[in-house]
Amino acid sequence: MKFEVTILGSSSATPIFNRNPTAQVLNINERLYLIDCGEGTQQQMLRFDVKSSRIDHIFISHLHGDHYLGLIGLVSSMHLNGRVKPLKLYGPAPLLEIIHVQFKYSETVLNYEIEFVPTDASAPQVILENQDIIVESIPLDHRIATTGFLFKQKKRLRKIIKSRVEELNIAVEHYPTLKRGEDYTAPDGKRYKNEELTTDSEQPKCYAYCSDTIYNERYFEQIKNADLLYHEATFLHNMLDRANKTFHTTAWQAGQVAAQTGAKALLIGHFSARYKSLVELLDEARSVFPATELAIEGTTFQVGEDMA
Amino acid sequence: MKFEVTILGSSSATPIFNRNPTAQVLNINERLYLIDCGEGTQQQMLRFDVKSSRIDHIFISHLHGDHYLGLIGLVSSMHLNGRVKPLKLYGPAPLLEIIHVQFKYSETVLNYEIEFVPTDASAPQVILENQDIIVESIPLDHRIATTGFLFKQKKRLRKIIKSRVEELNIAVEHYPTLKRGEDYTAPDGKRYKNEELTTDSEQPKCYAYCSDTIYNERYFEQIKNADLLYHEATFLHNMLDRANKTFHTTAWQAGQVAAQTGAKALLIGHFSARYKSLVELLDEARSVFPATELAIEGTTFQVGEDMA
Repeated sequence: MKFEVTILGSSSATPIFNRNPTAQVLNINERLYLIDCGEGTQQQMLRFDVKSSRIDHIFISHLHGDHYLGLIGLVSSMHLNGRVKPLKLYGPAPLLEIIHVQFKYSETVLNYEIEFVPTDASAPQVILENQDIIVESIPLDHRIATTGFLFKQKKRLRKIIKSRVEELNIAVEHYPTLKRGEDYTAPDGKRYKNEELTTDSEQPKCYAYCSDTIYNERYFEQIKNADLLYHEATFLHNMLDRANKTFHTTAWQAGQVAAQTGAKALLIGHFSARYKSLVELLDEARSVFPATELAIEGTTFQVGEDMA
Repeated sequence: MKFEVTILGSSSATPIFNRNPTAQVLNINERLYLIDCGEGTQQQMLRFDVKSSRIDHIFISHLHGDHYLGLIGLVSSMHLNGRVKPLKLYGPAPLLEIIHVQFKYSETVLNYEIEFVPTDASAPQVILENQDIIVESIPLDHRIATTGFLFKQKKRLRKIIKSRVEELNIAVEHYPTLKRGEDYTAPDGKRYKNEELTTDSEQPKCYAYCSDTIYNERYFEQIKNADLLYHEATFLHNMLDRANKTFHTTAWQAGQVAAQTGAKALLIGHFSARYKSLVELLDEARSVFPATELAIEGTTFQVGEDMA
C-alpha cells in the first residue's frame, strides 16, 4: 500500500531562494491528503503534477499565513475547475470565518461543500478515520494554537495464500474469517491453523507532522516510533534563543526529538529565510539523528523507507 | 523620467501554464507602485528582482481572489523584513476587514502603518497625488465593485539651457521662475524670452489599467488618449456570450476600446486558463488595434513606447 509524502513548500515565514511556504501532500493508497497550504501551493501542485481533484482532505496546522494563505486560492480553483464532491477541511475554528469573509466579498458560492472539522490544540483527538488510516491531531507548542497531525495506517487483514486455499478447495465465503486470522475446519473435520493458509499483512506505518513548535516533550509520547517524522527545524542551534523566543525548533533539537521518540527517519523543514544553503541544518540534525533528510520541494519520501 | 510597467501575473481566475494571477508593478521616476496582488505575487517579485521595500503604494482593483490573495503574504513579509515606513493601500473598503480578520487570528501586529484609502466604484476619484503623478480610480463594470486605475504623469517644469544662463550670468535664484516659463529681465534692463533660456519638458504620459470589466463605454472618456492602455482580454471573441455572462472582455473588444479611446498602445492580459497559447488572443486584438502586445510575465513595457 502506497504511503508517501511529497514536499510542496519548505520555507518558514517568507518565501525565498525558490523555497515556498509550507505545504506537503500525502499519498496513502492513492488518496491524497494535503497538509498545510502556504501561498503558492496551487502553483506548486501544477509544477509537481499533483492533481487537486484527487485531494479530499486538507489539514491546516495553524493560522500563521505561511501555513494557510494558499487555501482560498486552491479552494476557489477547485470550484472553478468544476469540483462537486465535498472537501474535508481540518484546522483551527477561526479558519472558517477567514474563508467566509473572503467569499462574502467576492460573492463566491462554491459548487461543493466544505465539511469543516475544527481542531483542538489542547489535547490529541482523532479527527479522521477511514478504511486506510486514522488521523490524530497533535497539540504542539507555538505562539498561537497549533496542532500537528499523526497519520496512522490501519493494520490490514491477513493475506490468503491462494495456492493453498485452492488446493484445499476452501469456499470463498470462508475468506473473510481467514483474513481475520481464524483457523479453518474442513468439512471432513480436519483443522488447519490460520498461519498455514494466510500470511500477515505488512506492519502499519505512521507519519508524524510537527510544525510549528518549540521543543517540548509533551507531544513526544504521541509521536513515539513514527516511521517518518517531519519536524520543523527553523534555525541552527546557535540561534536557540531566537528559536525559543519565536517558539520554533533548531535542527539539533529536531534530531533530539527523532532520537528520543524512536523515529525511524526524520525529515526537517520550515527553514528560515536566513539560510540560503541548507547543508548546515542537515549536518546538525544528522549529528544527533543520522537518518535525516531535508524536505526539499518536489521530493517524495516513502514512509517506512530506510534513510540511515 | 522613467515610466514603465513590469508584468508579474497575467492569468485570470486560476493560475496555469506558468501564468500567475494578476499583478504588475509600475516604476515611475524610481518609485514603485504595485497594481493588484494575486496569489504568488511576492514569489514573482523575487523571481523578477522587484524589491518590495521600494513599494509604498498598492492598488487593488477588486475583491476577486486572483487580484488580491497575495496581499496578506506580501504585507506580512514586508513586516518580517523590517519595514517601518508606512504603506498606502487603495482598494474596496472590505479589504481592510479581510486583512484585520487574518491578522487578528495570526496575532500579527505590523511594525508599520497601513494607510488605507477606500476606492469608490461609482465615480472616478483622485486617490493619490504626489510630485510625479496623479492617480484616479476608474469605475469599471464587473460582477462586484471594481475600479481600474489611471496613472497620469504631471507636467514637469521647463529645463534650463545651462550654457545659455551661464553665458548671461543669470543668478541661481532666478531658476525657479525660469523653470515655470517666465521671461527674464537682466540687471541692464534687457529682456530675454523664456524660450531662449529653457526647453520644454517632455509631454506627461498616462497609463490606464482596466481589469476586470465587461466592455462598457462609460469609462472610455476617462481613459482617452492613454499612452499605454492595459485592458483585460479574458476570452476570444467567439466566447462573447461567456464574456458577457462573467463581465469580462474579449480580445477583439479590448482592441476596440484602445481604438475608440485613442490609446497609443495596448497591452492585453488576464488570460483565461483555457488558452495555452496566447497567439490567437494577440492576433484578434491586433486585427482591430495593431499596436498591441501581450502582458507576458517578466516583461517590462515603457509607457509611451511605440508598439506599432
